[in-house]
Amino acid sequence: MAEPKFKKIVIFGVGLIGGSFALALRKANATGEVVGFGRSAQTLAQAQQLGNIDRIGSDLAAELRNADLVLLATPVAQMAEIFARIAPHLGKHTLITDGGSTKCDVVEAARRHLGTKIAQFIPAHPIAGAELSGPAAAQADLYQGKKVVLTPLPENSAASVARVRKAWELCGATVSELTPQQHDEVFAAVSHLPHLLSFALVHDLAQRDNRDLLLSFAASGFRDFTRIAASSPEMWRDISLANRDALMREVKQYADELYVVYQALENNDAAKLEEIFRLASQVRGNWKQE
Amino acid sequence: MAEPKFKKIVIFGVGLIGGSFALALRKANATGEVVGFGRSAQTLAQAQQLGNIDRIGSDLAAELRNADLVLLATPVAQMAEIFARIAPHLGKHTLITDGGSTKCDVVEAARRHLGTKIAQFIPAHPIAGAELSGPAAAQADLYQGKKVVLTPLPENSAASVARVRKAWELCGATVSELTPQQHDEVFAAVSHLPHLLSFALVHDLAQRDNRDLLLSFAASGFRDFTRIAASSPEMWRDISLANRDALMREVKQYADELYVVYQALENNDAAKLEEIFRLASQVRGNWKQE
Repeated sequence: MAEPKFKKIVIFGVGLIGGSFALALRKANATGEVVGFGRSAQTLAQAQQLGNIDRIGSDLAAELRNADLVLLATPVAQMAEIFARIAPHLGKHTLITDGGSTKCDVVEAARRHLGTKIAQFIPAHPIAGAELSGPAAAQADLYQGKKVVLTPLPENSAASVARVRKAWELCGATVSELTPQQHDEVFAAVSHLPHLLSFALVHDLAQRDNRDLLLSFAASGFRDFTRIAASSPEMWRDISLANRDALMREVKQYADELYVVYQALENNDAAKLEEIFRLASQVRGNWKQE
Repeated sequence: MAEPKFKKIVIFGVGLIGGSFALALRKANATGEVVGFGRSAQTLAQAQQLGNIDRIGSDLAAELRNADLVLLATPVAQMAEIFARIAPHLGKHTLITDGGSTKCDVVEAARRHLGTKIAQFIPAHPIAGAELSGPAAAQADLYQGKKVVLTPLPENSAASVARVRKAWELCGATVSELTPQQHDEVFAAVSHLPHLLSFALVHDLAQRDNRDLLLSFAASGFRDFTRIAASSPEMWRDISLANRDALMREVKQYADELYVVYQALENNDAAKLEEIFRLASQVRGNWKQE
């Protein structure tokens, strides 16, 4: 039998993202052993029981020295500290990737702490469900048919990028590449802004005296529009601040758009309203999730 | 066998809303015959072929004289003209209801054209799907378990309201009552505003040079948030204008809410963002569609 592609993988954060990565690579016969690190002993024990990881790591230096691949799958806000801790112990051939939803801030933290080893870090963002979390939610096919965006750095060698790309492809994902800047602008527009708008609508209604009456008449349109408003407050606080600049530009542009709609209402401008709704309806009608 | 509750029903607009009303009452053995009127001969013929209606009406005066119940199930913008046409021919005991998504404007049109016969009109809004339309989409169980809001008028007798309520209940709906004003305020907040916000987001993205790139990375959050942006532009133009005052107030209040979020981003105010997201997440998490 051929050697596995990655003899040893070290994962920080053994929940949905990290656990599924490990299970997928195991299923693809692409890994020797998987070692997990994390803040909660209970979570680590659960991940080991479930078979998401083979071992719970304790000696960081020893584990990192001969690791082929390190995955940071913690909340983005914890990654700076992890980069600082791993930097002194990274093996020469160890590559690092991550599962963070924002990239400029993660890259900035990596540059700050990895120094000249920054070439070993190939940032990634797997576009996969965030409604469930924890080791029990991990599954080998989470990334199957999903997108993963790599945001390679100028310092990365082509071979390193190819190797990390291969890891995500072995998980079943379709991998594409953007710059970190492009990534954050795209996701501010198509993900972070909609989340913020959905939170804002529910917060708006939730503060009213007649909120129970209002919610009792809410139907399927409301249900779908606000599904993402049930997301984790902590996670979205962190994402919003991590991608603050791009998100502020998006909110500003959206407020301008909303003012155009408001003016059309104010002016009883049926043609303008129809024009806005028609373009939106056409574009949304033709859109297909890839 | 007992007499049917409604010996003769006349329906204007034989598509999803009107056709399903007819099929539901037929299934409940609650109607003798159903006569359909409409603008398109082809649609009427299709409705008859499908058995949604028994006959296509031609002599308005003759059909209305002995009708028990008239349903206006056309787009709201066409209802004023229908009230004007039916007013001279309404039988003394004929009751009228409608299926419009807005109520103040329909009531205003009814008052204008029905004059003293306004007591015969009991306005209604069935909260049932609008993604499909036309006679072929009609089904006997469309209203099963759905909500119908009646907005009775001071002129209505209790017996008339009870009779129209019964018709909707025989369709399987749960009927509640609001004033027309209350109705329009509630639906501006929980339905019309979300539609407008969703249209605005897609329109915002659709106008950009990099729209194809953006849309290629949109995922399930975007999918659900924008599902309602694929709705009919004409229908939502009409609803937006029909409920213009309440909707303008809602857009204004939402813009204020959005500014609060924007300021929290600008001030790097993690606690404020988390507070907003947490209340929204709790309220949305606890909400159940009734």
